Amino acid sequence: MRHQVCIIGAGPSGLLLGQLLAKAGVDAVILEARSADYVLSRIRAGVLESGLVDLMRQAGCAERLDREGLVHDGFHLAFAGRTHRIDLKGLSGGKSVVVYGQTEITRDLMEARAALGVPTIYEAQDVALHDFDGPRPRVTYHKDGVTHEITCDFIAGCDGFHGIARRSVPETAIAQFERVYAFGWLGLLADVPPASNELIYARHERGFALASMRSHTRSRYYIQVPLSDQVEDWSDERFYDEFRRRLPEEVAARVVPGASMEKSIAPLRSFVAEPLRFGRLFLAGDAGHIVPPTGAKGLNLAASDVHYLASGLIEHYRDKSDAGIDAYSERALRRIWKAERFSWWMTSMLHLFPEAGDFVARMQLAELDYIAGSEAAATTVAENYVGLPF
Amino acid sequence: MRHQVCIIGAGPSGLLLGQLLAKAGVDAVILEARSADYVLSRIRAGVLESGLVDLMRQAGCAERLDREGLVHDGFHLAFAGRTHRIDLKGLSGGKSVVVYGQTEITRDLMEARAALGVPTIYEAQDVALHDFDGPRPRVTYHKDGVTHEITCDFIAGCDGFHGIARRSVPETAIAQFERVYAFGWLGLLADVPPASNELIYARHERGFALASMRSHTRSRYYIQVPLSDQVEDWSDERFYDEFRRRLPEEVAARVVPGASMEKSIAPLRSFVAEPLRFGRLFLAGDAGHIVPPTGAKGLNLAASDVHYLASGLIEHYRDKSDAGIDAYSERALRRIWKAERFSWWMTSMLHLFPEAGDFVARMQLAELDYIAGSEAAATTVAENYVGLPF
Repeated sequence: MRHQVCIIGAGPSGLLLGQLLAKAGVDAVILEARSADYVLSRIRAGVLESGLVDLMRQAGCAERLDREGLVHDGFHLAFAGRTHRIDLKGLSGGKSVVVYGQTEITRDLMEARAALGVPTIYEAQDVALHDFDGPRPRVTYHKDGVTHEITCDFIAGCDGFHGIARRSVPETAIAQFERVYAFGWLGLLADVPPASNELIYARHERGFALASMRSHTRSRYYIQVPLSDQVEDWSDERFYDEFRRRLPEEVAARVVPGASMEKSIAPLRSFVAEPLRFGRLFLAGDAGHIVPPTGAKGLNLAASDVHYLASGLIEHYRDKSDAGIDAYSERALRRIWKAERFSWWMTSMLHLFPEAGDFVARMQLAELDYIAGSEAAATTVAENYVGLPF
Repeated sequence: MRHQVCIIGAGPSGLLLGQLLAKAGVDAVILEARSADYVLSRIRAGVLESGLVDLMRQAGCAERLDREGLVHDGFHLAFAGRTHRIDLKGLSGGKSVVVYGQTEITRDLMEARAALGVPTIYEAQDVALHDFDGPRPRVTYHKDGVTHEITCDFIAGCDGFHGIARRSVPETAIAQFERVYAFGWLGLLADVPPASNELIYARHERGFALASMRSHTRSRYYIQVPLSDQVEDWSDERFYDEFRRRLPEEVAARVVPGASMEKSIAPLRSFVAEPLRFGRLFLAGDAGHIVPPTGAKGLNLAASDVHYLASGLIEHYRDKSDAGIDAYSERALRRIWKAERFSWWMTSMLHLFPEAGDFVARMQLAELDYIAGSEAAATTVAENYVGLPF
């Protein structure tokens, strides 16, 4: 089989890249190790920057998003018994975010891809990348007992942090920067109306909590827990008790304790690989970088990678220019590092770090107090939250 | 001896407080353990916020400061081979800072106090604070072999971090927050024209450097050094070599390597005591809190304490109201924590922390890149640097 581009991974990055390329007449195949149902069962983020919404429109996949997505013009920081609203729209010159589940994005992109009739190969086993340091890269995989080979011009590694793409690069060719946090987020999804019509990020002496949502009838709630905790330790009842204790009283009173549809503990990690291009292999999204979820940058950052990469590849085929693909790694990384900074900073400000001591806890409160009192400081939060320009 | 207020310490905090009280007709004595010459020999900060300049004017001591002080409308951040100017005046709505040595402030206040003929007792030995939890505090000291006792209404502890005032408070009555840094600043003072007409704060892989000044003919330069280093390890020649390597090339070329008039290593510390009032004892300035010098907040923070405390004491005597002294600790601490945050943040962003790893180094660069590209971020730097409102 021969294709112009072979995309590894059918998560939102791979699917969005595939869609943008298909719309521009570039021939790309997607290989995915899992089944479509498995991919759709992963519960992930749900706060979209306008840049991602624009890309979904550009990809022709925004009809349901535009209809069902909830536009949020602000969110709240709760700390020390106070609540301070970040006026996203007012502080960012009119920008907002849209609440719409990553799973829904994936579903919309899958359906659009199916409608185009372009190839996606699910349950591709033992995917291996070859010769991407030369002019004719190949990708091999097994399916139904048969070995297949795809030859292509470029490989796009969109297969996440644990995927094969980044691991195919020789260690000496890649620098990796990482910070792991000593705690995780216990998340619970339930079909109950959200306790607040805007998100609430709460810094509390017992630990961080986030009251989020997926729709007017589906709530997504999180609490910081030690990494040593197991999901089994947390009955729904215990979760709601702890969650309420960390929220402002008036919000806690509005929490409807619905049965969990999903409940899981996710570790927090900051990670960046440099560069994001190795010959004819490009990394995009979680394959190249991870942010902790505080500030909701993960999916949005994948979107800006995909934007830069799709533009570069389209330019290559349409304009016979490699300027875009040559600039890809540097352009993407510049924005990635800023989003890494924001996510690390939000995480550092809002979570309990028992080992860091009282002084650091006071710095968190001083920072929150400063944000609540300074328009410039609140603007830095808002402009990062709605997303820095591509 | 009986006075309304007994001030411990004749550094700039104690002298400024004494001057403001004297101007308002409040009778205060100052006790100082050292000689006036010793106090004047201490080389300290030299960047004044407009709030401190206003207080000096209010105290009637700003004539020389207004004549000789250098108004600075901006400063520079140097990093990754780039230099970015923080336009203090443009970003803060017209505010500036004034470069004028703390030693000169001390001298001006000493002379003004001498002209008023109000008492300052230098070389007071074994100063001890008594009964400040009751209505009649006393302060005892030895001088020339004789024990003296001062009775007063209030004691103001302006005797610095190592002074007796804070140490006179029972440990159970005071909470102390502290962060020590694993490095110090090696500072050099020389009578040579400064290499730059505005201050340069440089983040460099070899460590932090600061090109500062005291006047058009006197330079004050600093480099980050390990705390294990001794001043004797650093000849002037070695200092200038290292200093130049950490500066942007065009600035390094303008460094005139003049012989050091003073050279010393100062450790960096963040420290806050809570509360700042214990019955009839108040702590102000370094007696209550320490900031690392990055951002030049130490003297300025002492000034805002003195402003709140002087206002409160004057209100007590003039208006028979204790509202000001009752609010002192909380008002002062709110501003102190914000300045602590700014100083800790500037320190964290600009110094080398070898033990923190590559990820943190990249966060520093991402933060500096963000400041250079965001007006909101640059404004947060500017508004803190010129000083948040009293």
